[in-house]
Amino acid sequence: MKLSKLFTKTAKENPKDEISVNAQLLERGGFIYKNSAGVYTFLPLGWRVIEKIAHIIREEMNKIGGVEMLMPALVEKRYLDATKRWDVDIGFEAKGKEEKKAGFVLGWTHEEVLTEIVSKFIGSYKDLPFAAYQIQTKFRNEPRAKSGLLRGREFMMKDLYSFHESEEDLWKYYDEVKEAYLRIFHRCGLEAIYTVAAGGDFTASNTHEFQVVAAVGEDTIFVCEKCGYAENSEISNLKTGDACPKCGGEMIEKKAIEVGNIFPLGTKYSKAFNLQFVNEAGKKDYVVMGSYGIGLGRTMGSVVEVHHDDNGIIWPESVAPFKIYLIALDGAKKEADEIYEKILHGGGEILYDDRDDKTAGEKFADADLIGCPLRLVISAKTLQEKSVEVKSRQERSAKLLPLTKVLDLLKY
Amino acid sequence: MKLSKLFTKTAKENPKDEISVNAQLLERGGFIYKNSAGVYTFLPLGWRVIEKIAHIIREEMNKIGGVEMLMPALVEKRYLDATKRWDVDIGFEAKGKEEKKAGFVLGWTHEEVLTEIVSKFIGSYKDLPFAAYQIQTKFRNEPRAKSGLLRGREFMMKDLYSFHESEEDLWKYYDEVKEAYLRIFHRCGLEAIYTVAAGGDFTASNTHEFQVVAAVGEDTIFVCEKCGYAENSEISNLKTGDACPKCGGEMIEKKAIEVGNIFPLGTKYSKAFNLQFVNEAGKKDYVVMGSYGIGLGRTMGSVVEVHHDDNGIIWPESVAPFKIYLIALDGAKKEADEIYEKILHGGGEILYDDRDDKTAGEKFADADLIGCPLRLVISAKTLQEKSVEVKSRQERSAKLLPLTKVLDLLKY
Repeated sequence: MKLSKLFTKTAKENPKDEISVNAQLLERGGFIYKNSAGVYTFLPLGWRVIEKIAHIIREEMNKIGGVEMLMPALVEKRYLDATKRWDVDIGFEAKGKEEKKAGFVLGWTHEEVLTEIVSKFIGSYKDLPFAAYQIQTKFRNEPRAKSGLLRGREFMMKDLYSFHESEEDLWKYYDEVKEAYLRIFHRCGLEAIYTVAAGGDFTASNTHEFQVVAAVGEDTIFVCEKCGYAENSEISNLKTGDACPKCGGEMIEKKAIEVGNIFPLGTKYSKAFNLQFVNEAGKKDYVVMGSYGIGLGRTMGSVVEVHHDDNGIIWPESVAPFKIYLIALDGAKKEADEIYEKILHGGGEILYDDRDDKTAGEKFADADLIGCPLRLVISAKTLQEKSVEVKSRQERSAKLLPLTKVLDLLKY
Repeated sequence: MKLSKLFTKTAKENPKDEISVNAQLLERGGFIYKNSAGVYTFLPLGWRVIEKIAHIIREEMNKIGGVEMLMPALVEKRYLDATKRWDVDIGFEAKGKEEKKAGFVLGWTHEEVLTEIVSKFIGSYKDLPFAAYQIQTKFRNEPRAKSGLLRGREFMMKDLYSFHESEEDLWKYYDEVKEAYLRIFHRCGLEAIYTVAAGGDFTASNTHEFQVVAAVGEDTIFVCEKCGYAENSEISNLKTGDACPKCGGEMIEKKAIEVGNIFPLGTKYSKAFNLQFVNEAGKKDYVVMGSYGIGLGRTMGSVVEVHHDDNGIIWPESVAPFKIYLIALDGAKKEADEIYEKILHGGGEILYDDRDDKTAGEKFADADLIGCPLRLVISAKTLQEKSVEVKSRQERSAKLLPLTKVLDLLKY
């Protein structure tokens, strides 16, 4: 894409009303736009990052047998009445302009909706197990919507639900999801810590979170420096220096961002919606469920919190909006056009800074702020060497690559 | 995908609360689930169709220079106050559970939101023209939500917005969008009629609709049988038998479904949000805008209205959930498994009816109802001929294909 075709522009100053690094850099770079507190637009560059994250999530969900679907955001009162969650403060109510009372809550989770749907189809143990997921916009009226993409009132979430004939089968799948989640975060450039957490609204037993260590994190966790066992401080009696209950290693306190969570739901929802099946012995029993969430915007925000420097974002290649940022300088426009077409034609993802009203310094600053993994610079000087300058966003030094070899960049 | 892994099931009877063919067939086939009036879940089969339609739309939008983004569903009051659209009946209000008054409307269109965003970035004629689009869930409190996917209260829409320095440039792009829309509908298996329509809420001048002829359609249009010129009855003084104002041919009255619409917005929104630019002469002027919508669910519903018979849906290949529906009959399970793996491995989209508790008749009925373009049947009988039976959903007769040639099906 040519920068001249992108309607957004970068900003030199941090937005005054943002205190988190992810919001500051993402707004300055033209990735997101703040419409209201906790409500953001994904601008073209930001949308590309979300699409990359969504693609990774879909691949890993499909690998563990998840089938994709899409449930509505308008969740009728009867669904939440069945589990006594209609009055939960976190919900946004929705009603027609002419209506006196709200008939809908904006979905902040979809256990009820999917359990009702599944109850219309499932009859026998032969129909189990299965898992279904969606990537959907969700709504929660967060009082503390001050951390950019980390805590939104409107946000994109992948929610997976699994259905089993026994607790045993649930736990087997629960473990598969855990591994898939660790792969997803790793592929996005995040090392997530699997953390024992409280039950929350969903279930009485322990749940598990995926925590990314970052100073901005709202969660406090205790992590064993020896075996990696971790507990959320909300449920933990541990403190820094205590011995890890698993291996005796030392527990360390850390601030972290919760990027995903998984919940063993048991039969809470299947009982509320009479989701039963006939087991092998010919008897009726309630389906055992699990639910599993990942925030896409929160994952994107966490990547920025972890991968940046004073000059801007340093995107991991897997989720970068473009792999290559091409800068044309003094008198090298024609050659830059050619390289752009060549890389584009070769299937490369390239953002071309073709603006002619910007100085070299402005272009370098924008390249660093936007943070694509590779920066190419072509100028009269590099052309003397029949070369283009290549620099990794993560490194300080650049090197020259012969013009005849630019397609080698596609292999990186 | 194996049918045994799909949690949905087909139904023999039409749902009692649905009167439109699209809702009846899509619910019976397990494509959609009705959660509330005008509020549907896209089940895995239905989601695949939506994804195909979205892919076609994205390709055609990108071809005409549209950049993708995503705006929020929560649209703050100030946006619609600026254009006096806050009180429009069609809106759903949203408010936090603890709040007295609604602070948001659920976006039913996004002119205001995007115009404000663009006003932060655009300064010069050099920044124009450009176009941006999103595929997003929208909300309208439709009093007549009785036509399945044709009129939803929650629905997916592609909305494109374009920004120009002059009316002349807008009309040039308007024509490009018109051609792109005709290509989109054609690729989805619909012949849309470009129809002159009223201005509506958006603009004083005429707008244009894309109408698909169908008995269930809520619109009445007059189409010239000679040149194809069409007018919506809402603005037309014509009646059947009148002479076409363009060519003198005969105008015919038809019922039709509006699957898309395009609006010349002029400067209404740029004036409301002070979206100005400096023109080549160095003077400030208001940006000229257009907006362009396509309903994805409505397109899907229209395809079903147009392409079905008494036995079920007849999907055009471009938007079919799967290209091939494979049925294993008596004693041919092993060979069916092999064909399934072979086609899957070859990149084919195949739905495999591997259920062993269904009769041949039930499997044939489901194949017709779900409506994939090609049906393969493998049985002891076809194996005697070392063949598989191939039948097109559109034709009555089947033919035998040697087992060695099944990969030829991928070329269709």
